[in-house]
This record gives sequence, structure tokens and C-alpha cells, in this order.
Amino acid sequence: MDLREESMVLHEKYNGKIETRAKVTLENDHDLAIAYTPGVAQPCLAIKADPDRSFDLTCRGNMVAICTDGTRVLGLGNIGARAAMPVMEGKAALFRRFGAVDAVPVCIDEPDKDKFIAIVKSLQANYAGINLEDIQSPKCYDIEDELKKELEIPVFHDDQHGTAIACVSAVMGALRLVKKDIRTAKIVLNGGGAAGTAIGRLLVDCGAENLTVMLHHGTLCEGHDNNGRPLDRVQEALSKVTNREKRLGSLADIVKGADVLLGVSAAGAFTQEMIRSMAPDAVVFAMANPVPEISYADAKAAGARVAGTGRSDTPNQVNNVNVFPGVFRGAIDVRAREINEAMKVAAVRAIAELIPEEELREDYVVPNAFDKRVAPAVAAAVARAAVETGVARAPKDPEVVLRETYLRVNGVPMD
Amino acid sequence: MDLREESMVLHEKYNGKIETRAKVTLENDHDLAIAYTPGVAQPCLAIKADPDRSFDLTCRGNMVAICTDGTRVLGLGNIGARAAMPVMEGKAALFRRFGAVDAVPVCIDEPDKDKFIAIVKSLQANYAGINLEDIQSPKCYDIEDELKKELEIPVFHDDQHGTAIACVSAVMGALRLVKKDIRTAKIVLNGGGAAGTAIGRLLVDCGAENLTVMLHHGTLCEGHDNNGRPLDRVQEALSKVTNREKRLGSLADIVKGADVLLGVSAAGAFTQEMIRSMAPDAVVFAMANPVPEISYADAKAAGARVAGTGRSDTPNQVNNVNVFPGVFRGAIDVRAREINEAMKVAAVRAIAELIPEEELREDYVVPNAFDKRVAPAVAAAVARAAVETGVARAPKDPEVVLRETYLRVNGVPMD
Repeated sequence: MDLREESMVLHEKYNGKIETRAKVTLENDHDLAIAYTPGVAQPCLAIKADPDRSFDLTCRGNMVAICTDGTRVLGLGNIGARAAMPVMEGKAALFRRFGAVDAVPVCIDEPDKDKFIAIVKSLQANYAGINLEDIQSPKCYDIEDELKKELEIPVFHDDQHGTAIACVSAVMGALRLVKKDIRTAKIVLNGGGAAGTAIGRLLVDCGAENLTVMLHHGTLCEGHDNNGRPLDRVQEALSKVTNREKRLGSLADIVKGADVLLGVSAAGAFTQEMIRSMAPDAVVFAMANPVPEISYADAKAAGARVAGTGRSDTPNQVNNVNVFPGVFRGAIDVRAREINEAMKVAAVRAIAELIPEEELREDYVVPNAFDKRVAPAVAAAVARAAVETGVARAPKDPEVVLRETYLRVNGVPMD
Repeated sequence: MDLREESMVLHEKYNGKIETRAKVTLENDHDLAIAYTPGVAQPCLAIKADPDRSFDLTCRGNMVAICTDGTRVLGLGNIGARAAMPVMEGKAALFRRFGAVDAVPVCIDEPDKDKFIAIVKSLQANYAGINLEDIQSPKCYDIEDELKKELEIPVFHDDQHGTAIACVSAVMGALRLVKKDIRTAKIVLNGGGAAGTAIGRLLVDCGAENLTVMLHHGTLCEGHDNNGRPLDRVQEALSKVTNREKRLGSLADIVKGADVLLGVSAAGAFTQEMIRSMAPDAVVFAMANPVPEISYADAKAAGARVAGTGRSDTPNQVNNVNVFPGVFRGAIDVRAREINEAMKVAAVRAIAELIPEEELREDYVVPNAFDKRVAPAVAAAVARAAVETGVARAPKDPEVVLRETYLRVNGVPMD
């Protein structure tokens, strides 16, 4: 049986992957009277008097909505809100397993961007945060930007920012091993879509000064269009902080002498010749899914010192599972109003520095998804950055976030 | 500490009352690959090909949304979507505890009726059913009617229909004891709002032929207005099937000689004099909350043979907890398209007939909320009626529904 058949069997057997549970006992009239009527009137009135109390008096404080319109699900395209459910529900299960976050799928069958935004806005009273998922580009940019402006809770498009944090932390981990500095490393990033532009921006925010982004037909370059089509506004912004030498050319040209090559593009986009043309101690992360730009084995054979893909069957998997559970855990633990760049950079550093110096190896620069230390470290770093940047409405000691997260996620105290 | 203080302590301690859980294990790469990417693509494609499969391949099939706009929460009035959360979450916990239904609060901050309807419609891919809750009248009528037309899943306004089923089943249980027939019993119902009109309609659908509904200033009577104001459309419809003798008069006049007096009105609306004027073996259910139209003790002292209120501290509590868990359990088990009148009548009979003849007593005509037999009996009856009326998309043997529900709710097999 292949993975897809096994997946069908699993989904049929369990009828999905998440369920709800009552946290309180409901075994006698008194239990009902305090969990429900008439006692429940009091928490209602407390929230009416102080709206912020909805975070500690209801499930809201630990509840994240995974919102999609189903317009770009995995590599399946626009399959709609209903067919997107298995992915959103899987994500909800991962939120619970890796972040002790309660999460629910919110598949919204509304193609209109503005109506979609209004719907999510109308639902915010139920949630501590919004994880946007699998929404078409460029619609996803406007939806995220508008919701960030309108909502009082964090909004995070995981396909952009989760992927970016996973990728940039992998780069930083690799650079630790090869002892290069992100500020001076020559980095080439193939792909200028939603994920690519988010990775580009986060690399710059993490200090990269020599980054070139490749679009389909050449470099992203300030003052130049995309092979006859105008740059979108996100590409336009990124063009102002990357490729400062305004190089033009093909990927094969640009990659020569590069220290880092990243792909969020398409299967087979990288050749061994390209890898061979890179600088010594080359780092290659080929993240196209499910088939990478170049296989792990081929990248290594062509001389890459560190390589990785999005796949779990080769080393150094670049995996959002290392990211979103801890990011939301940290953000909601301090009741952050948003997930800002400083919080994303903090998450990058927490993941990149997690593996102790003496354990770092060419095939182990990215922590494993099941490493018990990841989510607690990310949560603590994100919480600290939220407090430091003034967006935490309920500041909390990051050390407490670390230990609480460890216990909640792993079921045992940290030692 | 009174109940309200205890309720605050409970809500602060647990930070709300429900949580999510993963139903599948996520302990290695293979687990992730079948619950999430890449394997999850297969259930997505299966749903794309056959939309109905979302009910068995995702949590949707067992998930009910408790939707409110927060415009009429308990007796607190229009406190808004956010402050309504503790009630909706309490209901979600009860759904889980008494019906093994996964339920989530969906508090919608949208006062406009049409937009509210559009929002719920856009969310239906996530749910097997919609429980409307705590929405102002008359808005609640239009919202329910419109959603019933538009959605492929059951829509049920619990404040109307849950209350109606609870009340009418209590009446039927009491009539069993006093050996009167609902068809000939003279029934007076005080209150023509959302709950009152739903009770009136359900009494008629259960066979009542001599029912008079009292509005604030007199009887609901075909061809007459409500003390100068026009009848709303629901009252108008009810006026055509009740009070066929077109009696006019005050509650004190109309109640003379009545067999059954019901109140969904206001504290103190019934006097002992009224009870004394009723027929022998009088039945009185005074359901105003939290203070009934007449206390249990006063009703009994005035000669009522059977009395009950909405309170848990006196006998014969008329309680929706006996209703909504089993109604939704039965409806979603056979994937009913709607919850129709036949299903409501079936629920009434299941509750009214639950207590064995030899156990029926004046102070025990309504099953206790913790009676393990209630939800399974209601679910089986509702499932059977759904199948018989042709609204079940996945027909199932009611006996199987009975036994499965018993096991799921009580954790032990039925003997």
C-alpha cells in the first residue's frame, strides 16, 4: 500500500483526525449549573465588562482557526473549501500534538476576497489567532495584510511565513556548520511566489546583504519587470532590498560562486552543474514538493556540503512542523496582538541554534520534527520577542513559556 | 460561594470548558505522511470527486457548530458575540458529554441578518449540523428559515425547537400519568415568543386539538391582532391551528377548566388562584428562567397534580439537555438533510415514553438529565423518523444508532 492508500484507510477508520473534549466534569446538576445555566451568566458579564477576559474565561485563549478558501491546496490547486478539509484538519491535529494548541479547521466557501476577509473578521471572538492556509497568490497577500490591520489577534499565513521561518532557520543552521556569516554569504533564491518572497524578506530581516531572487525568466531586479509582466507589490518591495548590484541573468549565471542556493520552485529546476559552480562548502535547500529541484543525493554528489529538501525521507527536512506550533504557542501565551518580523526572526534563531555545536553535522543542521526541544524553544523565543517589541498584551517570562510548553507538549517536565 | 462565583472560579481555573484532541497518533514520519502531506492529498481528491465523502473522511461528520450573534444571551440580552462565548462553549461541552457530538462555538459578530446567513452558509463545509442559539426574535425565524432552505445540513434553533421538544415531552409524560389524551386535553400556553410559538406548533403536531396560546394582552386568535400590534408571521400561522373556538379573554379566564397550563413567559405570571381554577389532575409547567411563573411548591399547594419548572432544584425539570444531544446524534448518524417535524415529534415521544409505566410518579414524569437512556433513545427515534421521511442520506438501523449512542455517550455497552 502506498502512502495515499494508507491515508485513505486512516481517514476512513477514524472519520477524520480531531475531536473535541470537555475539560470540565459534567456529572451532576451542580456541575451543569456552574458550567452552563444559570452560573455561566457570570463569565458572560465579566467578558462584557472587560472584553479581554474572553481569553482566560473561555477556550478562545488557546484556540487557533485554520482558515482557507481552498483555492490552492497542496499541489492540487483550487479544489474548494470542502475538499480542503483533510489538510486543515491535519494541521489542527499537528497544532495539538506539537504545540498543545487547540485548533479547528475553518474552511470558508467564499471566493470573494473582501467577503472572505469580512467573514474571518466576524469570527475573531472565537480565536486567539488565525492561521491562513492554502490561499491563492496574490489574493493571500491582501487577505493577510487586511486581516492584520483589522484584527486584534495574530494572523499568520503559514505557506508564506511558516515556510520562510523553516527555510531561513535551515540556512542559518547550515551556515553555523560551514562557519559562514549570513551577512556576507552570497545567497540565491529560486522562486518569487508567496513562499519565495516571504523567504526573501525574512533572509533580509535576518541580516542577509547579498541575496538574489530568481523569477521564472531571470533575476528580480529593481526597475526591471518580470519578463514583460509587472512585478507584484510584494516582489516590487523585495526588489528594493535584494540584488543591490542589479545583476541580470539566468539561474545558471547567477548561482556561480554562490554560498547558498534555495529553491521554492519546481521539480528538477537545479542541475548538478549549477551545484558544482557554487563556492566551496555550498549549501543547497531544494524545497519543491513532493519532488525537489534536485534530489538530496544528486546535490551531495555534485559537491554540496549541506543539502536538504522538504521530504522526510532524506536528511535536513525543511518542515513547517518545526515552526507553526511553537510560533502560535509563544504568541498566544503572551496574548500577542500580531506575529511581527522580530518574532519571526526570533523563531528562526531558536530553530537554527537548537542543535548543540557538538551535534551539528552535515546531515543534521535542521532539528527533527519530533525533537521535544523545538516547540518549547520556539515558543519561548517568540514570546520574548513579542514582549520586547511591545505587542504582548499579557507579558510572561520566556523561561516560564519554555517550561510550560515542554510540559504541555511532551507530557513530562523539562529537566 | 454562590453559583455565579463558583462559575467564575471554574472558568478561570480551566480557561474555558472544551479542547481539541487528535484522534490519530502522530509519533513518527510515517504518521505525519499519512495524516498530513503528502498522503492527505488522497482524501482531498476523494472529496473533490464525491463531496459527500467529507462526512466520513473528516471530522465534519461528527461536528456541530453552535452559532450565535449574541443578541439574546440567556436573560442578559444583547451582550454581543464575544460575551456569548461561555454559553456557546458550555453547550459544546454538553454536546460532547451527552451526545458524543463534537461541537464548537461559532460566535459571529455580525448584526446584519443577511450577512449572518451568508457567513453560516460559507462555513457549512466544516459541519454536519448547525445549532442556532441565543438569537433575537423575530430575526431568529428568518435566519433559521433561510438557512434551512440554503444548507445541505440540519439547522436547529435550540431556543425554539429544543425547548419545544423538552416542554411537549414533559406534557406528554404528565398526561401518561394522569391518563388524559393530548388530543382532547385543554391546554393553555402562556407566551407567544420564539419558544412559545415553537411549543404551540409542536403540541399541534403531536395531536393537540384544544390549545390556546396567550400573548401579553390576551389570547392568540385568528383575525385578531396582539393588542394593537400585528401578529408576527409565526404567530399568524399558529393562530390558524389553535384556539379554534376563537375565545378572547385574560389568562385567568382562559385557564379555567384547563388540563394543562404551560408558561414560557415571566416570573410570577401564574397565581395559585389560576391553578385552583383548572380541571382535576391539573398539569403545570412553569418554565420562565431563572424564576418560574409559579414555584413548584406553590403550584403543588394550589392543587396541581403534576408540576415542573426549568430549574434543577425541583422535580420534573424541563431541560433541553434531554433533547439537543440526542436529536443531533440521531440526525447526523443518518446524515439527515434537515430536522423536520416528524423527527421532532419522534424525539418528544422517545422522551415522554422513556420512564417505564411502573416508575412514573407525580414528581417523576420527566427523565433526569443524567439518565443514561435518554440520548440513545432520542437519537434512535430521530434517526428512524429521518429515514422514514426520506431525509436521511445515509440510512441506518435505529437499533444500531441506539446501541452505538449508548456506548459512545456512556462508555459502556447497553445490556
